[in-house]
Amino acid sequence: MKAVVFDEELKLCSDMEIPKMRAEEALVKVIVCGICNTDYEITKGYMGYKGILGHEFIGIVEDVNSKDKSWINKRVAGEINNGCMVCEYCKKGLERHCPNRETLGIWHKDGCMAEYVTIPIKNLIEIPDSVSNNDAVFIEPLAAALEILEQLHIKPIDKTAVLGDGKLGLITALALNSSGLDITLIGKHQNKLDIAKKQGVKTILSENVDVKPVYDVVIEATGSVSGFETSLALVKPRGTLVLKSTIAASKEFNFAPVVINEITILGSRCGRFKPALNYIKQKKINFEPLISGIFPFDKAIEAFEKNKQKDSLKILISTEIK
Amino acid sequence: MKAVVFDEELKLCSDMEIPKMRAEEALVKVIVCGICNTDYEITKGYMGYKGILGHEFIGIVEDVNSKDKSWINKRVAGEINNGCMVCEYCKKGLERHCPNRETLGIWHKDGCMAEYVTIPIKNLIEIPDSVSNNDAVFIEPLAAALEILEQLHIKPIDKTAVLGDGKLGLITALALNSSGLDITLIGKHQNKLDIAKKQGVKTILSENVDVKPVYDVVIEATGSVSGFETSLALVKPRGTLVLKSTIAASKEFNFAPVVINEITILGSRCGRFKPALNYIKQKKINFEPLISGIFPFDKAIEAFEKNKQKDSLKILISTEIK
Repeated sequence: MKAVVFDEELKLCSDMEIPKMRAEEALVKVIVCGICNTDYEITKGYMGYKGILGHEFIGIVEDVNSKDKSWINKRVAGEINNGCMVCEYCKKGLERHCPNRETLGIWHKDGCMAEYVTIPIKNLIEIPDSVSNNDAVFIEPLAAALEILEQLHIKPIDKTAVLGDGKLGLITALALNSSGLDITLIGKHQNKLDIAKKQGVKTILSENVDVKPVYDVVIEATGSVSGFETSLALVKPRGTLVLKSTIAASKEFNFAPVVINEITILGSRCGRFKPALNYIKQKKINFEPLISGIFPFDKAIEAFEKNKQKDSLKILISTEIK
Repeated sequence: MKAVVFDEELKLCSDMEIPKMRAEEALVKVIVCGICNTDYEITKGYMGYKGILGHEFIGIVEDVNSKDKSWINKRVAGEINNGCMVCEYCKKGLERHCPNRETLGIWHKDGCMAEYVTIPIKNLIEIPDSVSNNDAVFIEPLAAALEILEQLHIKPIDKTAVLGDGKLGLITALALNSSGLDITLIGKHQNKLDIAKKQGVKTILSENVDVKPVYDVVIEATGSVSGFETSLALVKPRGTLVLKSTIAASKEFNFAPVVINEITILGSRCGRFKPALNYIKQKKINFEPLISGIFPFDKAIEAFEKNKQKDSLKILISTEIK
């Protein structure tokens, strides 16, 4: 089968073996998958991962290694973290923090940028007919955005800023705004801000921001240290700064303001798919303007090049188009 | 009057004017005051403060600038933050985050290392006869320790580590342990750890710590970046790292583990005096072994020298001894 592999370099392989199902796994024929910034970070060395990339996909279950065959032919997405199910985290429903977890296309498990991928049956979620593939494929990044609401009680009265108008910032702003929260998206690109603005989100161009501590909650989604510093300057005393992106670069940092102003810094990563699917079913977000390109599988490397461009948002790779 | 002043250098002045009460302030004759590490930091430039130092004291109200004279002759401590009482923070009882606040001996308000200090009457708290001066003077650092419990719900089942066996770490460990929580104090000095151990706290010498993410809550009280990094390595995924000391030095820092493990970093500063006084009245903590020296006022500079020594804990300055 064809697959997008990172091993020292990014390459499109055409002679990969179709993966073998372990017990209680499904073999899924991939229809469409999305490129996440994490995939790009991996190609720069993040997590030291080598193997088939990708953790955002929609596909059809072709086979299962289980007595229960009911999943076959269903259209599905799959949660990306596979936990041991016996540790203290898994017992609390926190497989995404299992110390022995595999993470699809990120850690010890081949990803979904391939014609086929294997997924634990317990991680599957069925996509209803009313939802298109191109909407459904946003389930994973949307789940990551909604993770914030699982971790933190943001009140309707709270002023919340999302910093960064990339994919993650836009999806986060759109999701939280559609939840009835008071959201302001701050970013550097008017054309990207406009996508959110058209869906009712308040927006401010970064250069016009009055950098004062006026937000109860600030969600940092720029992935840059300077974005983090601005976030810290925007959050009120006793407020919460949600760190949504892994800041890979390190830099000098003074924690005194965090203590003096009793700021809470909350790291936030992957989320559950079920609430994300509810948002998608209810068409709370119009994802279409977030798609910057759909590439056939044979042009996956070009898709990664397109993803690197500053003006790109979500790039999809489809096995159904040529 | 005599006062300990920082203005470019630390000095003992003997010709200071007795401070004038503003409306609704009390004039307090100081009996005893404590040296806090913040005082020492101020002498190195922290907050850019110049004036009379000190924010930990017990004294007798000598006069009030108010119709209500009932505070006169009462033995008191005083909350250190004086808010405007009209801003959103003051309205929520968070004068300590009022953007226009004065902070005793730290910010725009002369401190208590003097024969007399003025304090807003609303900030006074009466010390009952059953409590000695040398216990009562711990009310401010104890309030800072108990602030953690105001901000964070630590459950009895939670494993909590306090990192750092200085004054703040010891008081925090003793206070939380006496609250029925599962506390382990980690520090570099066996003699300091033993003070906590004798009062029932579990202790581990730093060099013997198995640095793994096994604590639900880690309270960083070392004030060092390396202590912060160790704290981050000790806290479980989804756990909370309480930053209790202002890390003045800055250093390279990678936030990726905070995001990946969804850690909460909680800055924590001053607290309310009322719960602290309750702890002191109930004699939940034996403060006596935490006192490394009591100096007469005329030897205040020597007291600061003693405070700098590595093996020193709380240094008190008394106006009652010679």
